[in-house]
Amino acid sequence: MAPLRVGLAGLGTVGGTVARLLLENAALFERRAGRRLDLTRVASRTPKPEVDLGSATFDTDLASLDTGDVDVVVELIGGETAARAVVATAIGGGRHVVTANKALLAAHGDEIFAAANRRGVSVGFEASVAGGIPIVNALRTGLAANRLDAIAGIVNGTSNYILTAMEEEGQDFAAALAEAQRLGYAEADPTFDVEGIDAAQKLAILAALAFDATIDFDGVHVEGISGIDIEDIRYARELGFSIKHLGLARLHDDGVEARVHPALVPESVLISKVSDVMNAVMAHGDAVGPTLYVGPGAGGMPTASAVVADLVELARGTLPVPRAAKRRLPGLGIGGVVCAHYLKIPAIDQPGVFAEVADVLSRHEVSIEAVIQRPQAIRTGDEPWVPIIIVTDEAPETVVRDCVAELANLGGVTGEIARIRVADLSAMMPPS
Amino acid sequence: MAPLRVGLAGLGTVGGTVARLLLENAALFERRAGRRLDLTRVASRTPKPEVDLGSATFDTDLASLDTGDVDVVVELIGGETAARAVVATAIGGGRHVVTANKALLAAHGDEIFAAANRRGVSVGFEASVAGGIPIVNALRTGLAANRLDAIAGIVNGTSNYILTAMEEEGQDFAAALAEAQRLGYAEADPTFDVEGIDAAQKLAILAALAFDATIDFDGVHVEGISGIDIEDIRYARELGFSIKHLGLARLHDDGVEARVHPALVPESVLISKVSDVMNAVMAHGDAVGPTLYVGPGAGGMPTASAVVADLVELARGTLPVPRAAKRRLPGLGIGGVVCAHYLKIPAIDQPGVFAEVADVLSRHEVSIEAVIQRPQAIRTGDEPWVPIIIVTDEAPETVVRDCVAELANLGGVTGEIARIRVADLSAMMPPS
Repeated sequence: MAPLRVGLAGLGTVGGTVARLLLENAALFERRAGRRLDLTRVASRTPKPEVDLGSATFDTDLASLDTGDVDVVVELIGGETAARAVVATAIGGGRHVVTANKALLAAHGDEIFAAANRRGVSVGFEASVAGGIPIVNALRTGLAANRLDAIAGIVNGTSNYILTAMEEEGQDFAAALAEAQRLGYAEADPTFDVEGIDAAQKLAILAALAFDATIDFDGVHVEGISGIDIEDIRYARELGFSIKHLGLARLHDDGVEARVHPALVPESVLISKVSDVMNAVMAHGDAVGPTLYVGPGAGGMPTASAVVADLVELARGTLPVPRAAKRRLPGLGIGGVVCAHYLKIPAIDQPGVFAEVADVLSRHEVSIEAVIQRPQAIRTGDEPWVPIIIVTDEAPETVVRDCVAELANLGGVTGEIARIRVADLSAMMPPS
Repeated sequence: MAPLRVGLAGLGTVGGTVARLLLENAALFERRAGRRLDLTRVASRTPKPEVDLGSATFDTDLASLDTGDVDVVVELIGGETAARAVVATAIGGGRHVVTANKALLAAHGDEIFAAANRRGVSVGFEASVAGGIPIVNALRTGLAANRLDAIAGIVNGTSNYILTAMEEEGQDFAAALAEAQRLGYAEADPTFDVEGIDAAQKLAILAALAFDATIDFDGVHVEGISGIDIEDIRYARELGFSIKHLGLARLHDDGVEARVHPALVPESVLISKVSDVMNAVMAHGDAVGPTLYVGPGAGGMPTASAVVADLVELARGTLPVPRAAKRRLPGLGIGGVVCAHYLKIPAIDQPGVFAEVADVLSRHEVSIEAVIQRPQAIRTGDEPWVPIIIVTDEAPETVVRDCVAELANLGGVTGEIARIRVADLSAMMPPS
């Protein structure tokens, strides 16, 4: 069988690793794919003479991949503009595409899949979510017998590293972020990771696949971890929770609930123990029940593992051409969410304040599940104050928001109230 | 495209569920597979009139599936003899096979795969290991870019349920087993599960797939959990471990290390938290690093989920025909294993006994990592005795075995010494 001719766009960490794997493990991949995977062309705007490209032709012009000896373009440039052009050109030329670019798919996935459908070419994107975890393959094939109704997980390794460092080493957010930057786990400008945007893009891709629909990225509720205080993590732990940055999507009759935010995860749920830069994705199906997939979420080798898996599938002829005309599911927004909440209320250390707090919650019919208030936690300030920690029972998002606004106006409350949602994953996750 | 015509052999819990899914979700599966999955024939030696079989023809003769209107035979009879005949007949007739039968594959997999290869038909066996977890698919496709060098996991839900009940509820083995039987998690004769045979069969199948080789089932070292005492679980916990029934296979230059036994798993390793009847499989690849897959290991729905996934793959044309001429890897036996050990040594409560114990270990160059010996643990008997708990550093299996034999002959040692291996999975598992 004729070789699958691979054109590689981008020669950064992942691109270089893909090139190396294709050259070093050529015999292995040929055996598994049933035909050779030949790296014929490499294009990168900055020349990288230190990477061995075998017999591949190198060019600094990305348009050089638009040629007869390329069957599949592997897009590893990143970003949206140039990558979008490379992908569009490849598909227009009747070439298959494999990409690790979540930002591109989250923003322009519809356009790309529609074009690929019209042209009859395949699009592989295993590498775009959860790094080396073969979750796209699991959703598409391994769980094909299931109607999936929920997907959740830890899909941003940077945030998970920072939260783990805060929990295990007692670092505050700034120190943990600095450490993550030093280790190369966080960018100089960490906004994309720590504000949840990266996780939201991945969640949108996963939800679209799981629910077999087009998901509006703007309908994903996005919050990052930059507001999490080390004290919240300590109190959460004391109450039996870890704070994780979670993506969660549930299929409802009228749309998709999709949200990315920090959440208290009960220690009884396995993903509460997934630490450092590891990712974890849970998928719940009507036949299989809960399943969980854990592995490295980023890095050259794990991402390259996912890219090459798509190439092997393509060579075997089993990487699908995107279907046309998927249903579009509206995002339901955060307003309709009903869940328990963690509240940290800074209050004057005087009799009666707690009663006022409890009264506000009671009038909104929000029950209290757990409370921590300790004399030894008293802080000095203009006047002494103490944090009141409350975990509520399940209550509507909007009601809890109203409660917090009202609590903030109490005379006894001295500062900003922290509010973190509690993730109820017990029905959808394997328990630990 | 013509429908895929399914003949179902066996109508127990899994068979009935597969039939129901094929009928109820026909439209869904058609969309995902690109063609219909038609249940055309069902054969079961005992009639099951209560199961709706749609338009399928029912027969109590298993040979009735050997007919022109069946493209794939789904073997869900269990056992070896009749199942082997059904599978052989199907393959001989040019029909594909999907099976959940681990015993059959462990004993006769070579013969079945060779026959399928000659006849050019596919064999699906996702359901034979780890129930609903799509681990076969992950190993075959999702991790296709990797050389896998280790696979490990909890693959017997019955044993995991019993050990969890012992750890969490303080039940002894007999009570936990009785509870498992009452709940339907254990058979009336539990030997197959609690003595590790079921897990060894699954490990052999997983290792063969992961290492792309034929594994000699007789080369798998097998121990079950029936010798685990509740006290061992308590001490292990105190030392920072859970006791799990583990299957573990590692690829070496000269063969495969494959073993199934109870093991102390550090709490820092995620699978130490996988509880009840959940299964978990870890696979380590050279590109991806460590990955972990968790889900329900048994039950009608999860197993049916795996069976139907194979049918969808078959309908898509992506379920592979087994390759011929795999390398055969010898089992290396347990003798060459080097690992830490937990020892519980019942000793007379007299001065000098611990020194004698330490001396034996020292002469065999076995270092001590941790010790527990407490005055309040003294038991009355013919003479008062006390358990000495030792966790050793890594040492060769044979050396530790010699130590235990020598320790048993000490005058101060009053009874049988318990020895449980410690699993060092830190390099191959996502940490918790």
